[in-house]
Amino acid sequence: MSADASHPDTGPAGAAPTETAPTDTDLLEAALTRPAELTARLCDIPSVSGDEARLADAVEELLGRISAGPGPDLEIVRDGDAVIARTRLGRAERVLVAGHLDTVPIEGNVPSTRRELDGEEVVWARGACDMKAGVAMQLVTAAALRAPVRDVTWVFYDHEEVDAALNGLGRVAANRPDLLEADLAVLGEPSDAGIQGGCNGTMRVDVRTTGVRAHSARAFMGVNAIHALAPVLAVLAAHEAETVTVDGLDYRESLSAVGIRGGVAGNVVPDECVVSVNYRFAPSKSGAEAEAHLRELFAGYEVEVTDLSEGARPGLDRPIAQAFVEAIGAEPAPKLGWTDVARFSALGVPAVNFGPGNPLYAHKADEHVACAEVSAACRSLLAFLEPERSR
Amino acid sequence: MSADASHPDTGPAGAAPTETAPTDTDLLEAALTRPAELTARLCDIPSVSGDEARLADAVEELLGRISAGPGPDLEIVRDGDAVIARTRLGRAERVLVAGHLDTVPIEGNVPSTRRELDGEEVVWARGACDMKAGVAMQLVTAAALRAPVRDVTWVFYDHEEVDAALNGLGRVAANRPDLLEADLAVLGEPSDAGIQGGCNGTMRVDVRTTGVRAHSARAFMGVNAIHALAPVLAVLAAHEAETVTVDGLDYRESLSAVGIRGGVAGNVVPDECVVSVNYRFAPSKSGAEAEAHLRELFAGYEVEVTDLSEGARPGLDRPIAQAFVEAIGAEPAPKLGWTDVARFSALGVPAVNFGPGNPLYAHKADEHVACAEVSAACRSLLAFLEPERSR
Repeated sequence: MSADASHPDTGPAGAAPTETAPTDTDLLEAALTRPAELTARLCDIPSVSGDEARLADAVEELLGRISAGPGPDLEIVRDGDAVIARTRLGRAERVLVAGHLDTVPIEGNVPSTRRELDGEEVVWARGACDMKAGVAMQLVTAAALRAPVRDVTWVFYDHEEVDAALNGLGRVAANRPDLLEADLAVLGEPSDAGIQGGCNGTMRVDVRTTGVRAHSARAFMGVNAIHALAPVLAVLAAHEAETVTVDGLDYRESLSAVGIRGGVAGNVVPDECVVSVNYRFAPSKSGAEAEAHLRELFAGYEVEVTDLSEGARPGLDRPIAQAFVEAIGAEPAPKLGWTDVARFSALGVPAVNFGPGNPLYAHKADEHVACAEVSAACRSLLAFLEPERSR
Repeated sequence: MSADASHPDTGPAGAAPTETAPTDTDLLEAALTRPAELTARLCDIPSVSGDEARLADAVEELLGRISAGPGPDLEIVRDGDAVIARTRLGRAERVLVAGHLDTVPIEGNVPSTRRELDGEEVVWARGACDMKAGVAMQLVTAAALRAPVRDVTWVFYDHEEVDAALNGLGRVAANRPDLLEADLAVLGEPSDAGIQGGCNGTMRVDVRTTGVRAHSARAFMGVNAIHALAPVLAVLAAHEAETVTVDGLDYRESLSAVGIRGGVAGNVVPDECVVSVNYRFAPSKSGAEAEAHLRELFAGYEVEVTDLSEGARPGLDRPIAQAFVEAIGAEPAPKLGWTDVARFSALGVPAVNFGPGNPLYAHKADEHVACAEVSAACRSLLAFLEPERSR
């Protein structure tokens, strides 16, 4: 004990607390009517992929308290670090709203700060936009519901930002597909609080040339695999990507070399060169069709598919999707990047992306979300689920 | 001590030697009249680049014994792990014969073995061809000389197989250029015991494209640096290398991509791509001319020279070189690979490659040299230096 500890003015160094410190759940619960504040408190619980347990625990406990409150009861299921909570009101339609709990690694941006940016108040933190603002939207709306016109399933899941094989939503789809049954799925990924329908598919292929190794002082003894790749790069450079209209939305495709490698040593004619090509294809095409297109483009070369995720049609032709569009009150746009909406599409559930935040700030060191946009997204979602309460 | 050690039939485990074990130098000296055997014993002293001291010590001591023998006295100088020994007979001409002591890493091929290959007896070992057979040729000839018609400088050096900045010959040229003065230099690198004149120069350049990074789902937001490299590969693929006649020898050039790299991640349009190009240019061209040629070929692209070694003209027009050609009795050929002859050329000393061994086996796991070729090379070199003794 230091001398100062017994100083009459400072009191004992480790005074016994007069009340229990608030838990993560207490802190989240206290912010349930303030969407931006809840976003900040969610960001302050770090949850980099693989380390979601603490946040999943808090969310599970919070859903229990919401269930015990004035709104409808929730059936709560835990699967790994995914948490599923659903109403069982016997409504004609069920809406599923999903969001991932994990973030990419922190870059000195946790805990969160409040800042003013171009005259707007923002929450500045890792995950603010991708996608703890979306999770806040889920929790605020879950707590606000009293008598929704549609049944609701809330899904919070782990491992979205890493290898697709670890994805918590994929795991739940395998373990308990019944939990994901719905007439419409809304994925709370950042979409500027507008509706982005479906998503392009994505395929990666390796296009490979082979040659014959030789000393580069006698290059005529070998066959240069890098030179042999020249026509492949010419095809890529000349290619003009299509724009395909699907269910009324224009999906712009992309075809890009994303990596190239070749070379043995500074004095060796290389016998192998590989260019990795990423094709983002419209959701009207299957993976098999995308592959056939690439094999035709690179005819005569060795083409190996290294990665494939099918796209998802926007599904905006269904009445429930139309009702969602009306409630949000904004023109839907196509989603070009691949998202987990495709997992719902594969289960036969039409799915859209809808969440607060500008996706351009996802994974960036300057990640942030506008406070007003989080509140607006909560109001829109509530308007869809319980029009009476939002008027 | 184990029980067996006192067994009457086996005798003491560590019997004191009745005579001193032969040293490295003793073993080499005992083989001085048997070129293939000396090659094998040189291979049995490992000397991977950086680890030449043991072999350099043995060679230095052996040269001392040769100097003390019936032939001419030698002035012996040690510089790091290079050893220089020279006669001072006041002859009108001086010939320098140089060879490196180091090898590339061993691949289970030390100690050496004797094998029969296509009816020929060979020494099979790391360094057999590149170039302990050449070192054996130097030592056998040094020991055989009695009254050479030309003064001789023997140079044994370190670090040939690694970064040029470490090269022992380069170090001696900087420290003691007087030791390298000569009218003709013979570099004992494997040349099938034929004369290979001069060498092509070598230049490496990086040709770089830059672009703008973007998510590959929205490739139209970026500029793909790999696609931008397509015209560079097209130039390389279409290029036909020249053959240039220099001092009567035909030097075939080579232009090769030896490496290519680009790519940030599987979902990112890359903003940089670099192809490394190696140009082997005829010795009639300077490095500056070679560079100008590449800048013209890749006009409009960023070109950075990363490596340059000037070539060496064959120098076969000089009378002493002609005399060497006559002594060897074979038509000289051009050397396409770069060798240390260029260092002599830079010092104003005409230089040729002449040594036993097929260069195609250099650095290979099946490296070997034909025993008969080592003997023949020794006879040829002796014929040049002391025609009387070789008749």
